[in-house]
This record gives sequence, C-alpha cells and structure tokens, in this order.
Amino acid sequence: MTSAARKDPIEINDPDFSASFDALYQKTWGPGAVPEKYKQLTGVSISIVERCETCLGWHIKEAVRLRANKNELIEAIRVGLLTGGSITIPTVRKAYEILEEQKVR
Amino acid sequence: MTSAARKDPIEINDPDFSASFDALYQKTWGPGAVPEKYKQLTGVSISIVERCETCLGWHIKEAVRLRANKNELIEAIRVGLLTGGSITIPTVRKAYEILEEQKVR
Amino acid sequence: MTSAARKDPIEINDPDFSASFDALYQKTWGPGAVPEKYKQLTGVSISIVERCETCLGWHIKEAVRLRANKNELIEAIRVGLLTGGSITIPTVRKAYEILEEQKVR
Amino acid sequence: MTSAARKDPIEINDPDFSASFDALYQKTWGPGAVPEKYKQLTGVSISIVERCETCLGWHIKEAVRLRANKNELIEAIRVGLLTGGSITIPTVRKAYEILEEQKVR
Amino acid sequence: MTSAARKDPIEINDPDFSASFDALYQKTWGPGAVPEKYKQLTGVSISIVERCETCLGWHIKEAVRLRANKNELIEAIRVGLLTGGSITIPTVRKAYEILEEQKVR
Amino acid sequence: MTSAARKDPIEINDPDFSASFDALYQKTWGPGAVPEKYKQLTGVSISIVERCETCLGWHIKEAVRLRANKNELIEAIRVGLLTGGSITIPTVRKAYEILEEQKVR
Repeated sequence: MTSAARKDPIEINDPDFSASFDALYQKTWGPGAVPEKYKQLTGVSISIVERCETCLGWHIKEAVRLRANKNELIEAIRVGLLTGGSITIPTVRKAYEILEEQKVR
Repeated sequence: MTSAARKDPIEINDPDFSASFDALYQKTWGPGAVPEKYKQLTGVSISIVERCETCLGWHIKEAVRLRANKNELIEAIRVGLLTGGSITIPTVRKAYEILEEQKVR
Repeated sequence: MTSAARKDPIEINDPDFSASFDALYQKTWGPGAVPEKYKQLTGVSISIVERCETCLGWHIKEAVRLRANKNELIEAIRVGLLTGGSITIPTVRKAYEILEEQKVR
Repeated sequence: MTSAARKDPIEINDPDFSASFDALYQKTWGPGAVPEKYKQLTGVSISIVERCETCLGWHIKEAVRLRANKNELIEAIRVGLLTGGSITIPTVRKAYEILEEQKVR
Repeated sequence: MTSAARKDPIEINDPDFSASFDALYQKTWGPGAVPEKYKQLTGVSISIVERCETCLGWHIKEAVRLRANKNELIEAIRVGLLTGGSITIPTVRKAYEILEEQKVR
Repeated sequence: MTSAARKDPIEINDPDFSASFDALYQKTWGPGAVPEKYKQLTGVSISIVERCETCLGWHIKEAVRLRANKNELIEAIRVGLLTGGSITIPTVRKAYEILEEQKVR
C-alpha cells in the first residue's frame, strides 16, 4: 500500500504531496524498534479489520518478503478476524486464498 | 479488551457465550508463533485506526506488561495514525497521554 | 435515535429537513410487516456493530417499551458482538449496564 | 456468512479456531428467543450499514430460506439505508438486484 | 449517488420511501448557501474517506459537470487521503484513474 | 484537528514525524484552488459522517474563523447527516449545540 510504485497515479497527478506522504510511509513501515516483519503482520491484521483487500494483498506480500511464515500469518489473520468480527469473514477467506496462491508455508 | 475480567457484565449476563468468546480471545492474543508483545503492539495500532479509546488503554497496558518500550509504542502509534489518517489524531493524543501517565520509557 | 424529541436541536435549527427526515424515520421504524419489537432489536445489534452508545440507549429503551425481554435482548447483543468483533466489547458492556439499570428481565 | 461451508479456506487453514468460531456463529444465529427469520433480517440491515455485499447475499438467502417475504425484506433494507445513509445506496441497489434474481415475493 | 436515476431498483421496489429519500437528497446537494460545485467536491472527499468507489465516480462526474477543474479535484482528493489515511490509497488511485478517463483539466 | 497546537503530545513525543505530518496537514487544508472556508465546511461534513466530535469542534471553529455563516454550516451538516444516516444524529445534535455556544449566525 505504498504510494512509491512507479507510474502510481497519485505520484503522477500530485507529485509533491505524494512524495511527502511516501516519506512518512517509509518512516512508518521501515526499519526501527519493531522489526519490519511484525509491522507487516500488523498491516495484515488491520487490512482484515478494515476489510481492504487491496491493502491485504500488499501487506501479505511484504510480510512474506520479510520471511513471515504461515503460522505467523495465521495468527495475524486471527487477530483481524476476532477483533473485526464475522463481518470480516469474506476478507479472511481472501487472505487464505492469497496464502495458497503464494504457496506460503 | 478481554471479556475475562471478574464481574464483567458480559460474563454475568451471558456466561456460556462469554466463556466461548473468551477462549477464542485467549487463543488469539496468547503465546504462539508471533511473540505476545508484538500482538499487543498490533492491538495498539488497530485501536487507533478504529478510534477505540477503551481498547487502546487495554492494549497499551498489556504491551507495557510484556515489556514493550516507548520507541516500540511510538512506532505502533505511527502505524495507526498513518493508516487511519488525521481523523485518528484525537485518539493518538490519548495514546501519548496514557504513555505519560504510565511513565513508559 | 429519533429527531422527533421536543426541543431537538436539529428540529430547531433545520426544521423542514428535520421534519422530512423524521417522517422517513417513523416510516422505517414504525409498524409494518416486521413487528416493531424486532426492528428495535435490530437497532440494538446495529448500535453495537457501529459502537454508538447513544443509539444503543435509545434502541434498548424502545425495545423494552415494546416488551422485548432479557433473553431477546441478549440474543440481539450477541448478533452485534459476533458480527462486529471484540472491538465492540466496551459497547456490549454498556448494553448490559443499561439492561441492569432498567431492571430488564 | 458462516465459516461452516465445506472446503471453506478458514476451516482448511485454521481448523480449531474455525470450529470454535463457527460454534459461536451457530449459537448466535440459530434458534432461540428471537425467531431465526428476524435474526437474518437483522443480518440484512447490518450488511447494508456495513456495505458488505458478500454478507448481504448470505443473509438474504438465509432470510428467504426461513420464509421472509418481500415486504419484510424491504423493511429490513430500509432500516439499513436510513441508519447508514446515502453512502449505502450502491449496496441497497445490490440488495434489490438479489431479490429480483431470487424472485422473492 | 442519487436514488433518482430511471429504473433505479430502489425506486421500483420501494417507490414512496425512495421518493421521500430522493427529495431529501435533492435538498441536500442542490443549490443553496454553499455552491453546488463545492458540495460535490465534499462528496469526493467523503467518498475517499469512506472508500466507496461507486459514490466516488458519481461525485467526480457531478463536480466536473459543475465545472470543477483538476486543481480543485486534487485538493478534494488530498482532504480525503489525509483525513482517511493510507488505507484510502486504493480509492485515491481510482479517483485519479477516473479523472484521466474523463480527461479532466 | 491540527497537530500544530503548542504542547501537542504528538509533537512532544514524536517530533519529526509530527512535523512532517503537520506540513502535509497545512498543505491539505491551507489556501489553494478551493477556498479554505469550503474546505473547512467539508471537514464539518466528514466529521459528522465519521462521528468524531473532537474533529467536528475543530472544523466548526475553523469554518467560523473563515467567516462561514449559519446557513452554510447547516448545509454542511445536512451533507453529513444524509450521507452518514441516522446513526450520525447524536453527532449532528452536538454540531448544533456548538453553533449555539458560539452564537453563529
């Protein structure tokens, strides 16, 4: 869910604002006191609570890149489901479909 | 944000449902592949995105009990603020007031 | 959660809009194919999912006026809690406090 | 919106958690003091307020199975629309499309 | 996001309610003390905060019809993005895609 | 809802992040193609849809400082109420109480 992707429409249409927002984004999700992997797992949980599938795909991909394993992802998904309730079930199903597509173990 | 507190009104009025929900709650937030401290920091971020001050107080207290330090809490707060936007600012202010009250370092 | 209360600030400040909105409100929550009691129990469930305590107090009062009993209210509260997740727990606790105050049986 | 469907990805990937959640789900939406039909109509209203089309399709199907008629469904839809406001209109349109597909009378 | 479109399913299935709601809708978004163009720009900002793409398409189209230019739309989009946070980024990207499709300058 | 207030806890505890966020905030709500008054009226509408009373107080105060009159504020409030639905009524009542306190005409 970064605004830094090349040819991102926000970057093209509102470049200064996009660059400032992206700097905050990097500072928020980048290295620090909390390991980046755990931040991305938080992103997975929030995406479920907020029922944002695009956000979810992004944060799962990032978590996997940072070597989160399947058990860690399952726990992040549970936090989202229990906190956000049964209304998140369609999003939780999507999360497991993404894990299967990416052959996460 | 547990339903396990003594004399919790949910436990008193709907004991079976409360016990089952609480078992799921313990399973979700308890020990596992993701260290409990990082789960509670996730709880801090979600509480900010969802603007739930009662939830926030609970998760900060739990994170501090699990020895989260101030830098870790600041990073969890940033994730909530940037993800949820400026509408979370009143809740973020509350988060810092709680950290100050609890003399978190 | 009606805008029809006497001296309601919406009615005072924007009377025509308030009257039209209130007519829709009466039509929505008034008698019809679904008994009014069950509509008010729906209002209790929605108030929990949306974490609106003022709305919750209103819908519980209306449900009780329409002779909803405690078991029916507990079931409406469960629908809200399970659908909206653990983030609704502070609101669910409030629901049971209101039931206790009103001595609902 | 049950997690009990066969081959549900939640059941496959997190079977114990899924089974416990599903037991709560059955307890919440199953028979009790409030007739199941009215619970499902509540599910329709909540799905509209929360703008969850997958949830909406599920609850309409369940309500129809429990012999809710068109007038009852229209009243449940109104509760969702008026409570959640004009932002729910795309979801309300979807609700009526589903009723038409299912030839609800 | 009007319920006034011909053959709108709400109008067909619940005509009286739809007509009353639509009258409120016209009163809310129509001419008054605030120029209609600025109301529609508000609609753009709200659609982003609420992550409603159907609503967004409608309000952009209306804003353009009322001669909002690209700089005004960019500012309305910024209000939505900063207020609603990074979780709105997929919706903001959609906003810029719509502006490009409609060749807004 | 600015993070620029003196002694703001965000500024004290996370000064660099706060300063960057505040720069975006000023750019978003400051002068530009859309007059600042109309941006603040948008802030009033969003605060109602999102049911954030602290945000609402801020945006009303700013709108009044920028010489928004009562009729303009009523129209911004209507946009929030109709878009967000009856669940916003407690927040709308608060809006009118603030207008009365500030003797807005």
